[in-house]
Amino acid sequence: MKKNLVPTMGLIAGMALIIWSILLSGNINNFVDIPSVIITVFGSFSALLISFPFKTLKNIPNVLKMLLSSPGNERTELVSLFAELSRKARKDGLLALEDELDKINNPFLVSGLQLVIDGVEPDSIRDILELKAETIERRHSTGQAVFLKWSELAPAFGMLGTLIGLIIMLAQLDDPSTIGIGMATALVTTFYGSLMANLVFIPIASNLKVQTDEELFTAQMIIEGVLEIQAGTNPRLLEEKLLLYLNPKDRNNSKKTNKGTENEKSNEAINNG
Amino acid sequence: MKKNLVPTMGLIAGMALIIWSILLSGNINNFVDIPSVIITVFGSFSALLISFPFKTLKNIPNVLKMLLSSPGNERTELVSLFAELSRKARKDGLLALEDELDKINNPFLVSGLQLVIDGVEPDSIRDILELKAETIERRHSTGQAVFLKWSELAPAFGMLGTLIGLIIMLAQLDDPSTIGIGMATALVTTFYGSLMANLVFIPIASNLKVQTDEELFTAQMIIEGVLEIQAGTNPRLLEEKLLLYLNPKDRNNSKKTNKGTENEKSNEAINNG
Amino acid sequence: MKKNLVPTMGLIAGMALIIWSILLSGNINNFVDIPSVIITVFGSFSALLISFPFKTLKNIPNVLKMLLSSPGNERTELVSLFAELSRKARKDGLLALEDELDKINNPFLVSGLQLVIDGVEPDSIRDILELKAETIERRHSTGQAVFLKWSELAPAFGMLGTLIGLIIMLAQLDDPSTIGIGMATALVTTFYGSLMANLVFIPIASNLKVQTDEELFTAQMIIEGVLEIQAGTNPRLLEEKLLLYLNPKDRNNSKKTNKGTENEKSNEAINNG
Amino acid sequence: MKKNLVPTMGLIAGMALIIWSILLSGNINNFVDIPSVIITVFGSFSALLISFPFKTLKNIPNVLKMLLSSPGNERTELVSLFAELSRKARKDGLLALEDELDKINNPFLVSGLQLVIDGVEPDSIRDILELKAETIERRHSTGQAVFLKWSELAPAFGMLGTLIGLIIMLAQLDDPSTIGIGMATALVTTFYGSLMANLVFIPIASNLKVQTDEELFTAQMIIEGVLEIQAGTNPRLLEEKLLLYLNPKDRNNSKKTNKGTENEKSNEAINNG
Amino acid sequence: MKKNLVPTMGLIAGMALIIWSILLSGNINNFVDIPSVIITVFGSFSALLISFPFKTLKNIPNVLKMLLSSPGNERTELVSLFAELSRKARKDGLLALEDELDKINNPFLVSGLQLVIDGVEPDSIRDILELKAETIERRHSTGQAVFLKWSELAPAFGMLGTLIGLIIMLAQLDDPSTIGIGMATALVTTFYGSLMANLVFIPIASNLKVQTDEELFTAQMIIEGVLEIQAGTNPRLLEEKLLLYLNPKDRNNSKKTNKGTENEKSNEAINNG
Repeated sequence: MKKNLVPTMGLIAGMALIIWSILLSGNINNFVDIPSVIITVFGSFSALLISFPFKTLKNIPNVLKMLLSSPGNERTELVSLFAELSRKARKDGLLALEDELDKINNPFLVSGLQLVIDGVEPDSIRDILELKAETIERRHSTGQAVFLKWSELAPAFGMLGTLIGLIIMLAQLDDPSTIGIGMATALVTTFYGSLMANLVFIPIASNLKVQTDEELFTAQMIIEGVLEIQAGTNPRLLEEKLLLYLNPKDRNNSKKTNKGTENEKSNEAINNG
Repeated sequence: MKKNLVPTMGLIAGMALIIWSILLSGNINNFVDIPSVIITVFGSFSALLISFPFKTLKNIPNVLKMLLSSPGNERTELVSLFAELSRKARKDGLLALEDELDKINNPFLVSGLQLVIDGVEPDSIRDILELKAETIERRHSTGQAVFLKWSELAPAFGMLGTLIGLIIMLAQLDDPSTIGIGMATALVTTFYGSLMANLVFIPIASNLKVQTDEELFTAQMIIEGVLEIQAGTNPRLLEEKLLLYLNPKDRNNSKKTNKGTENEKSNEAINNG
Repeated sequence: MKKNLVPTMGLIAGMALIIWSILLSGNINNFVDIPSVIITVFGSFSALLISFPFKTLKNIPNVLKMLLSSPGNERTELVSLFAELSRKARKDGLLALEDELDKINNPFLVSGLQLVIDGVEPDSIRDILELKAETIERRHSTGQAVFLKWSELAPAFGMLGTLIGLIIMLAQLDDPSTIGIGMATALVTTFYGSLMANLVFIPIASNLKVQTDEELFTAQMIIEGVLEIQAGTNPRLLEEKLLLYLNPKDRNNSKKTNKGTENEKSNEAINNG
Repeated sequence: MKKNLVPTMGLIAGMALIIWSILLSGNINNFVDIPSVIITVFGSFSALLISFPFKTLKNIPNVLKMLLSSPGNERTELVSLFAELSRKARKDGLLALEDELDKINNPFLVSGLQLVIDGVEPDSIRDILELKAETIERRHSTGQAVFLKWSELAPAFGMLGTLIGLIIMLAQLDDPSTIGIGMATALVTTFYGSLMANLVFIPIASNLKVQTDEELFTAQMIIEGVLEIQAGTNPRLLEEKLLLYLNPKDRNNSKKTNKGTENEKSNEAINNG
Repeated sequence: MKKNLVPTMGLIAGMALIIWSILLSGNINNFVDIPSVIITVFGSFSALLISFPFKTLKNIPNVLKMLLSSPGNERTELVSLFAELSRKARKDGLLALEDELDKINNPFLVSGLQLVIDGVEPDSIRDILELKAETIERRHSTGQAVFLKWSELAPAFGMLGTLIGLIIMLAQLDDPSTIGIGMATALVTTFYGSLMANLVFIPIASNLKVQTDEELFTAQMIIEGVLEIQAGTNPRLLEEKLLLYLNPKDRNNSKKTNKGTENEKSNEAINNG
């Protein structure tokens, strides 16, 4: 699978900008404070241990792997794949699809086609695939929820660290010359809490939400496509229908590579706009 | 297409007011701080690179072009266009609509009419057009989501910049005479973050939301109109029905230009209030 | 139409309290600062120019007029009006309602009755009236959205003004004796932003929301009433049904003025509680 | 009706804690500041006069009375009441229920039973009772909305009072010895705004929301029960069904007092868990 | 029932981190302040007494017990349990399930099976079980609401305590040497309010939400399973269907332990992806 390096680059660029901004006018040593990192990251993680089942938290590394995988033009590729499958099914019968299953690497589509091959009723296929899509959504939305909660808890623990620093500093106000360095240290935890929330946790939660939406829209497209194959719809018409799930730009690209269609006009009618 | 200059004027007016307000009592040099702009804009953009697919972010310039296009009185014009199309369809048959397609520049309407000409079933037409409207909404709402997220991240990175400035200043508190200028510089990033969020990103997100709502309401009107043409509804009655999609003011203007109607009373009955 | 002076009185009372509170311990001159008002009001309005179509913003004065109009006991009056119309319709036929239309000043009801007189099908009447109610709601909710957005932007621009003042003051920290007056001036924009949001924009948005809800509930009642008249329901029963749309207090008042009813018990059965 | 003293006790306990906390380390005179109370309470009330119809605000005392009334175990009592009514209806006919109406003090149930006695169709009964429940919810949710809005406006006016105090103090910074007392006075309005919101308005809004939810769930139970009586359902079965509306604990208590049932097993089947 | 120690460990770890962070640079005595704890915890609890029925608050200890119970792999175990029950029902008839009831410790499942044994209609079984699931959700969501409200009120009362401390300190500003210790004490209540909200109340509310979602999904699975048993579905097919309620990982584990199935392919078709 193609790697998606953009999120990693965003993270590196953001960190570089912050460090550059520090070096511009100050000393980075004021920002290197391991206890601040510990209280912000592990303190908020302790709260996560109460908030979510341990099983969900153990899954965080897998969720992060998702960030690195490129979604690609999956729906664009599915359009021609479905057209091909539909042609084969009309020519050689639904059972002939069995030979194609090995070549398909979308497991949701594979299980949909297997149900068709097994001769399951259309309504049952829809029920089973929708329940599957719901399970996928449940799993994904739990991942989102973890990072969203983390993005709230990290700045809160950063604030707690700053409060601790402030209280200690204020209680020892004998030597006014230490006020500055005391407050500086106190503010570093707020800095870490805010940095982690805004450069890491909030963007990750947002990324997962977009990917979930995309995946569910693709699942909806696959359910439609599988049922149309079972119903024996004309391959050309099926392709037209599925093109509607693409955004207009990909739709045009996809059509340029499919010259010489039969009913060109209907094609345009469906896909314009 | 007519340009809509109001948003640009709003942006210029807002900037002018801010600059005037600065010049009134201070020196604008205190606000010219390139690193502050860089950390606020590019820092938050780095986080956006993690939050959204790169494809979505590349589309930002196109989204901004939408801001400049004037929505105009599209629905008002559609009312008489539909009445005309309906008359032609009843006189010369549905196939005669084909000659009109070139003159229509609303691609959503064109594709709807093409489906009618191709003799597709009403239920299928509704399904296809609603799926299209959903795709349009998905694309638009992603644009909104980007600017909404940006409007949250920009002040957050502004705050981070201020925190960095404060920590550096507090750690070097040897020379109290520099406190003022240090805090002033630190606050400039907060100023930029807040200015960008409130004068640029929040308004753009709001503008896109209003445009999407309008476009979807227009799509709903077109679906209704196309299906009524296919059903061969009386042109007069079709016009009355579609007038309901206008707000009362435009409705009255539209009626003034359509004197000498057949069933004047029913007209008033439907469109009063 | 009866004027509703309560909102105006609320605004005056709020302003008077704020001024009294200032005079109690300080000099009002510290709060008279025209540039602060300009940056808060016009700065946030500039952002509104980007956020909403100009047509919507031009409509603000009309929206404000709505605040001054008294909603009155519209639904209470509609109950007896419907009973009367129903009696007339049963005695003289539906066409006889035509003579009554001029006496009714609720345009939504007039258009509903006209549809009945024109002999439109019940289902079409419901569709048309519901689409009308939706258009009313769309128009109203845009008005709300403008004031809600303004109530967010005004304090934000107030804060921006304060930031500008603070940065200027901090950058010129040569003369410590001016710190106080500098900060006082800086805070005045925050004061204006917060005052406008909390005494003007938030309450107006809330008021519009309540009025929209009321109007839609009245529309629902009118749709029900119009269809019952068309169906030729017993006037007594129709009145009982419509009384359900009143709140219990108005319901009792309304019944006291309708002594000597036929089926007293059913009346109580429907309207108790 | 039994009084519910818990909310009053909560209010007294909260106030006592706050006063105790003040007396512990300071002088309560610093907190007695009538103008602060006036600006916070009446300032925010002025904004409420703009936000809501005057009729709604006049109703506040009645809403507060609701807080003091004990909801009791209404649903638990309804279970046996329904069983009894059902037995009577099956033995002596639906008309015999008329004699029971005087003994029932739930007006919603009374009106439901009266509709049954009057021989209204089941579907109409459901429509009428659901519309009634909707009216009740509308009235209640307006009460909630008032206190929710008040809980936002009170701290905002507290903040405004503090801003006024700060600006006045900063503008008269001639005598630094008065800074402390000036800021103390300024902060008192923030204190009152926050105290009122968190100890009074937010809890009242929350209380009303819980009561509305309970009342609507009871209404749903009564609608079910009334329709089952009309349908002549077996009293034992009706009781079983209605027990489902109780939470498990009350369910068990209720069953302990109903020894010697006929089909014990089915009873357990329905109500376990 | 297996204990779930993770939440307790999270709480201990979080507390340990906070204490370690304090000891690192200061004296823990500055943080030991019983009145601060009292005002934060009991002040916010006083407000809860107004916000919720006393019955709900009395239930808090039971809700906390839920946190300690391990949800385990309930759905995984239910799959094989349902397969077994289904086999028995097909071999010996539905009445034979009665012997199994004692061995099942999920009361929701027991009551569902009892309804099947009693020969209740499928539609009634679905209604009864869904009403039960709704009651469970109502009870759970009240628990969540309490902790969510508490997580808002605790920091608010912490802030009130800090305001009280600040006002007292500022009013007695005679001796500047006490400013530090006065502010330190004032901030301790903010510290406690924030600590309780972020380490205790917010995580507990989140935990309860996750558990409720899981329980409702399990209830949905049980309703499906019970109705399939009543319909006499093939045990193999029933197992396949219920496997869809598991997440893919558990699904695979579950399948590994069920070697030698009849229609291996359909199995894969349904559960891939």
